[in-house]
Amino acid sequence: MKSFPTFMIEPLVRDALKEDLGRAGDITSQLLVPKEAVLKASIRARQEGVLAGFDAACLAFKLMDPDILIESHKKDGDKVARGEPMAFFSGNARAMLAAERTALNFLSHLSGIATLTSRYVQAVKPFNTRLCCTRKTTPLLRAMEKKAVLAGGGHNHRFGLDDAVLIKDNHVAIAGSLRDAVTRVREGAGHMVKIALEVDTIGQLYEALDLPVDVVMLDNMTVDLLCEAVALIAGRFVTEASGGVTLDNVKEIASSGVNCISVGALTHSAPILDFGLDHGI
Amino acid sequence: MKSFPTFMIEPLVRDALKEDLGRAGDITSQLLVPKEAVLKASIRARQEGVLAGFDAACLAFKLMDPDILIESHKKDGDKVARGEPMAFFSGNARAMLAAERTALNFLSHLSGIATLTSRYVQAVKPFNTRLCCTRKTTPLLRAMEKKAVLAGGGHNHRFGLDDAVLIKDNHVAIAGSLRDAVTRVREGAGHMVKIALEVDTIGQLYEALDLPVDVVMLDNMTVDLLCEAVALIAGRFVTEASGGVTLDNVKEIASSGVNCISVGALTHSAPILDFGLDHGI
Amino acid sequence: MKSFPTFMIEPLVRDALKEDLGRAGDITSQLLVPKEAVLKASIRARQEGVLAGFDAACLAFKLMDPDILIESHKKDGDKVARGEPMAFFSGNARAMLAAERTALNFLSHLSGIATLTSRYVQAVKPFNTRLCCTRKTTPLLRAMEKKAVLAGGGHNHRFGLDDAVLIKDNHVAIAGSLRDAVTRVREGAGHMVKIALEVDTIGQLYEALDLPVDVVMLDNMTVDLLCEAVALIAGRFVTEASGGVTLDNVKEIASSGVNCISVGALTHSAPILDFGLDHGI
Amino acid sequence: MKSFPTFMIEPLVRDALKEDLGRAGDITSQLLVPKEAVLKASIRARQEGVLAGFDAACLAFKLMDPDILIESHKKDGDKVARGEPMAFFSGNARAMLAAERTALNFLSHLSGIATLTSRYVQAVKPFNTRLCCTRKTTPLLRAMEKKAVLAGGGHNHRFGLDDAVLIKDNHVAIAGSLRDAVTRVREGAGHMVKIALEVDTIGQLYEALDLPVDVVMLDNMTVDLLCEAVALIAGRFVTEASGGVTLDNVKEIASSGVNCISVGALTHSAPILDFGLDHGI
Amino acid sequence: MKSFPTFMIEPLVRDALKEDLGRAGDITSQLLVPKEAVLKASIRARQEGVLAGFDAACLAFKLMDPDILIESHKKDGDKVARGEPMAFFSGNARAMLAAERTALNFLSHLSGIATLTSRYVQAVKPFNTRLCCTRKTTPLLRAMEKKAVLAGGGHNHRFGLDDAVLIKDNHVAIAGSLRDAVTRVREGAGHMVKIALEVDTIGQLYEALDLPVDVVMLDNMTVDLLCEAVALIAGRFVTEASGGVTLDNVKEIASSGVNCISVGALTHSAPILDFGLDHGI
Amino acid sequence: MKSFPTFMIEPLVRDALKEDLGRAGDITSQLLVPKEAVLKASIRARQEGVLAGFDAACLAFKLMDPDILIESHKKDGDKVARGEPMAFFSGNARAMLAAERTALNFLSHLSGIATLTSRYVQAVKPFNTRLCCTRKTTPLLRAMEKKAVLAGGGHNHRFGLDDAVLIKDNHVAIAGSLRDAVTRVREGAGHMVKIALEVDTIGQLYEALDLPVDVVMLDNMTVDLLCEAVALIAGRFVTEASGGVTLDNVKEIASSGVNCISVGALTHSAPILDFGLDHGI
Repeated sequence: MKSFPTFMIEPLVRDALKEDLGRAGDITSQLLVPKEAVLKASIRARQEGVLAGFDAACLAFKLMDPDILIESHKKDGDKVARGEPMAFFSGNARAMLAAERTALNFLSHLSGIATLTSRYVQAVKPFNTRLCCTRKTTPLLRAMEKKAVLAGGGHNHRFGLDDAVLIKDNHVAIAGSLRDAVTRVREGAGHMVKIALEVDTIGQLYEALDLPVDVVMLDNMTVDLLCEAVALIAGRFVTEASGGVTLDNVKEIASSGVNCISVGALTHSAPILDFGLDHGI
Repeated sequence: MKSFPTFMIEPLVRDALKEDLGRAGDITSQLLVPKEAVLKASIRARQEGVLAGFDAACLAFKLMDPDILIESHKKDGDKVARGEPMAFFSGNARAMLAAERTALNFLSHLSGIATLTSRYVQAVKPFNTRLCCTRKTTPLLRAMEKKAVLAGGGHNHRFGLDDAVLIKDNHVAIAGSLRDAVTRVREGAGHMVKIALEVDTIGQLYEALDLPVDVVMLDNMTVDLLCEAVALIAGRFVTEASGGVTLDNVKEIASSGVNCISVGALTHSAPILDFGLDHGI
Repeated sequence: MKSFPTFMIEPLVRDALKEDLGRAGDITSQLLVPKEAVLKASIRARQEGVLAGFDAACLAFKLMDPDILIESHKKDGDKVARGEPMAFFSGNARAMLAAERTALNFLSHLSGIATLTSRYVQAVKPFNTRLCCTRKTTPLLRAMEKKAVLAGGGHNHRFGLDDAVLIKDNHVAIAGSLRDAVTRVREGAGHMVKIALEVDTIGQLYEALDLPVDVVMLDNMTVDLLCEAVALIAGRFVTEASGGVTLDNVKEIASSGVNCISVGALTHSAPILDFGLDHGI
Repeated sequence: MKSFPTFMIEPLVRDALKEDLGRAGDITSQLLVPKEAVLKASIRARQEGVLAGFDAACLAFKLMDPDILIESHKKDGDKVARGEPMAFFSGNARAMLAAERTALNFLSHLSGIATLTSRYVQAVKPFNTRLCCTRKTTPLLRAMEKKAVLAGGGHNHRFGLDDAVLIKDNHVAIAGSLRDAVTRVREGAGHMVKIALEVDTIGQLYEALDLPVDVVMLDNMTVDLLCEAVALIAGRFVTEASGGVTLDNVKEIASSGVNCISVGALTHSAPILDFGLDHGI
Repeated sequence: MKSFPTFMIEPLVRDALKEDLGRAGDITSQLLVPKEAVLKASIRARQEGVLAGFDAACLAFKLMDPDILIESHKKDGDKVARGEPMAFFSGNARAMLAAERTALNFLSHLSGIATLTSRYVQAVKPFNTRLCCTRKTTPLLRAMEKKAVLAGGGHNHRFGLDDAVLIKDNHVAIAGSLRDAVTRVREGAGHMVKIALEVDTIGQLYEALDLPVDVVMLDNMTVDLLCEAVALIAGRFVTEASGGVTLDNVKEIASSGVNCISVGALTHSAPILDFGLDHGI
Repeated sequence: MKSFPTFMIEPLVRDALKEDLGRAGDITSQLLVPKEAVLKASIRARQEGVLAGFDAACLAFKLMDPDILIESHKKDGDKVARGEPMAFFSGNARAMLAAERTALNFLSHLSGIATLTSRYVQAVKPFNTRLCCTRKTTPLLRAMEKKAVLAGGGHNHRFGLDDAVLIKDNHVAIAGSLRDAVTRVREGAGHMVKIALEVDTIGQLYEALDLPVDVVMLDNMTVDLLCEAVALIAGRFVTEASGGVTLDNVKEIASSGVNCISVGALTHSAPILDFGLDHGI
């Protein structure tokens, strides 16, 4: 059992391969590599980091040719050292050359996210704080990117607009007041759905203190205000800090005692972790 | 006529919306926003940069509700200043809130690529050098990312394995020699297909000088070697430098006189350009 | 703004039309109805009930011909009397005849669910109890059926395996104990995810009383046991009764004071609400 | 060779699994069940009935993990006793728990249809009458439901609008007369297409007696009228009774001597046949 | 109302456009034609023939840009003279140039089929014989090609394996005898399904004369044998000649008195009818 | 490694099977062939020709039942003699009968193209001329048809509008002059993209002689003019003749010394190569 059942990521890997193969396929290899030639290769990280997207990378090879053999002792979430081989492949040379770039694109992108996440997680280690991703994900890759965040030691926020309620300022404006908004949501939302409330000021927080919500998202507050807010809330709600979080300030934010910190950059601005395919092992 | 005909990007935008809407849709707005409420909003850049992905962002709104009105004087490739509104939207409030994140995710990701590209292009401006992207793109977004590179003033390399030949070292190893590889490709490739040859050393280049290829890719060479190579080639081939290019060294590489420089980071490691939706205009 | 944005239900309605049109389309009408003939028709309920699936029914007509006019003052959740017209249609006769059965199949199936739900809801009206559907839905129609339950006055339980945790006996067996299971879930689950625990006996409930779960599902308990459980829980958790619920016993179950009752039959065994298309209005 | 080749039902089973797994999959099992844990389980009917949909149920497990083993001596159309195990499964525990609800939803829905069909078939057993389903099927499940009707001993009517002609009153109205309608259809319809004519009264039937149709559908007639009609027709056409058929009156209708009776309720209002998955066999 | 509702052919036209546009679209026009330039053009036949596929051709333009205007007094089945304009188009130049080849490919292929069909139909005109296509169609285009046969004045045989029974020699071999095969089919097949029987010799025909089939397909018989067979059958069955039919012998075959002649070449070997797009009208 | 990786042609073969199987599948075999019956069969050409489409034909069988065994020593591009068996199949009888027509339709259509191509190639054999296909392909089958042209010994022109530039007269008209058009394309087109220019007269050719294009397409010129053009060009460009090419005149055209001749008829008007499935080997 892998991170995803194959049938869920197959359409994505298939479409990614099609982007690269186009209509005519790998014309260079068709002209230069004999039909039955066999290749051995290994994938190595060119930088230290945390692995993610291994399923998708393997599937790229398997879709080109199910007979390609893959050997590995690594899995998503494992650390890789610079130059360390993470998997060995052997099989039809044309198929392997055709799959190479697509496999590496998945692996590099998702391991980049896992690696960046692990840096944030490392930074808040002294504190009992969760590091969460947001809905600011790369279009079409949300589920994979959220798994990559888990691989890096982070946690997932809601997956989309449908699996939890998050009441923001414009919702409150339409509803009339914090209290009215929360009351209407409480009545209407399913009993298996959590309710989070975004507050931007300590004043708003006072208004919210006796409302039946599960999570309070403290948006764009200074560390001082976060400390004040955490003290005021005193365990009534799960607390979450968001907005303007960077690798430089995340530790200080965590020191405020918030339960979670959410960081859009984990998924929207992580540079890749560089991997390469070395032929001939 | 937009960057893409709608039918080509609709499946991507549709699937991106589905990632966010899940099965139940935007449950918060369903509970708090009246069915017929109307919203006005503007999208503003929170940073200076170059716009890309505007078609996809608009389509996210239009798919939620074709009656949403969009007004804008901007288009892909335009510069945006920090805080400058790039488009005004008005329409059904539920539809607009549901489309918001998906629209911004496309816009931020693709404008991030256009913005980074424009920085590289700016850096090589004194020289007559083209800046090109590679096949190291985010899975499923290649065509959009390549348009974003154009929006940033860059050029596109081949789109995939099928629209041009690129002979690499492992192909040469299989074919026996540079000459054999090029000869076989010349004979077999269609007459509308360009042939590029990767060389890593000046020695290889000497071997290649009289071969009938269109482009020589000078891979991972120092600037000194690039200068030597350009002098040797003397206009016989289009020249392309690749490998290890950064914003710091791109100008010096361009000074070698190569025709093109290809940079994977344009598409695989560009941070987003931050955009936000301001309600109530 | 309708119950669903069109793009989300279009693939379902399109595929349902294809089931009926096959490869050759409505061959009877092609042979007997002139190409440009116009038809007027109304859809009427042949039984009293609650309307659901109106969006899908209308879309079936619009997909056949976007110029078909639809007039109606009804919407999902409205009651319909026997014989009452719920919508008037006019347009190309061939298109309308071809869409008729598909439109009615959606409408009848989903209104059947809304109508059965409304009967259960009516039965528990004296009590402050929510009536919920389950994951026992007709394959491929879950989102539509869950909306139909809302139209009938019911509530939705979790939408799938991914949007809430439900710890069942086999999970507990694997984890070792209730406490261990809940602890591990608490640590690992996202902070926006609710946790429900299934208990079958009062003994299990005692074990669970101080565990940090959100919902306790009291499975297959007699009304006496439910009363005892509700008293023991004393507001610590949201309570849900499940198993063996029928229209005959639902009121008595509600009298136990549980917060929610979940009923699989709402979606898996509701007979249709019969609708017909009357030609010539 | 199964009821359907796998490739024809795979898209349906795949989409049904996706409905349940959403984006994050079975989060409960991911947190509580070890990745490599193995489970044994059996599916048992909780009621007596007739089996249908076994292919789809098995495919739900196989799509989650092709290595799950399935052992069974049952097939669609077989009777199952209450509590009787119909199949044994063993394999990866996470995969099995994730597939369980989807598999049971297919099995219960389709076996419900087969079981109801078998009751109707049983009722008309003394007579030489066929029991047929209609086009009143659940959207997206028509082919599967029609197979379930066969499994229950019934027969299929036309599959859609394209594989046979059925002339109804509104067609006749447009054509001018029964005779004109039949003549035009005869001329235009393919020679491999059957033609059925709906008649509502004995008067209409007289008009139809010498027309070249294959089937006459006697719609909403009393048993007396059906007897009269059958006598009049005297073997000229295949006869079919339709409209208002229930388990209570189907035997009497059959006694009229009609060749076929069509019943919409078989597919649109059959309650499920309850199945459960028992863990640990 | 067109030959097909748009939603049924849109996926085909969309995929055909994608074949031609690839990932980057029409790069020549993007470089040379101003974004807002407008073009007028007409489609003209370069040969005399019969029109088919007009819906698909128009849809190719409309998918590129819904604002392209199309004016025409022609429809499928109409004759076109050499050089005669069949439709006028005006709209965005880039969109029109991008759609041109795809539109013409549909039009030319399908009109080629209609034109060839009309020649066969013309040849048998003195006789009361139907000209039918077979299942030997171009993969993925069957429904469109069958409509093109109708446009050419021909008729459709069964659409596939599922809408009529055709008993061939290998079926008979498995069943044991003609009589056994027909009996089993009669019992099992739906009452709305026609049954055809293939016979290769007059001996087989004698065996078949009192069997309850609807159609007898006389396969690969000489005209003399066909005459003998038609006389023997004497109106008991619909008769169909098949095998080895050409434009040269079809009239003689028709003179045998068979009801239908089926010709695979109509769909599998029709040369295109040449159309061109003339710019600037 | 086959001509295509399976995942690229599977959607086409799957959809082609669905065209033939419809909703109910092969009803004749379901009624007459026992579920577990086994069949042996061979595919034989009924005419001499060149094989293409073998992958797709095999996949049709494998999709019906992966256990069908296929034995063959032939591959695409091989010659087949009349009556020569090209492959032996054995497996489930129902599956094989259901796949038969779809498999043969792919094989016959694509081998028809390969066979016609080989005739053209044979005709120009005395000369060093390439025979190329065009974009005039059957909608949805372009990639397969282009492979079939390769199998027949021909070459591929550009695959679509996106992989090479072809400047035609209307582009020149919009750009103002040949020189302006070529200059703008040179500046804007990627460095991996070839540029072809269509010229219709010797006058135009003079204008083009010093322009930086890769290919000159000599459209609709007489053989005398082609000779003059080839002499004028004197190796500056790759030369291509197009327009009005037939099996009768292709050799004379080749004698002009052009490098390539492009022929639309290869893909748009090739009659099938007739194959049949012989049961019982």
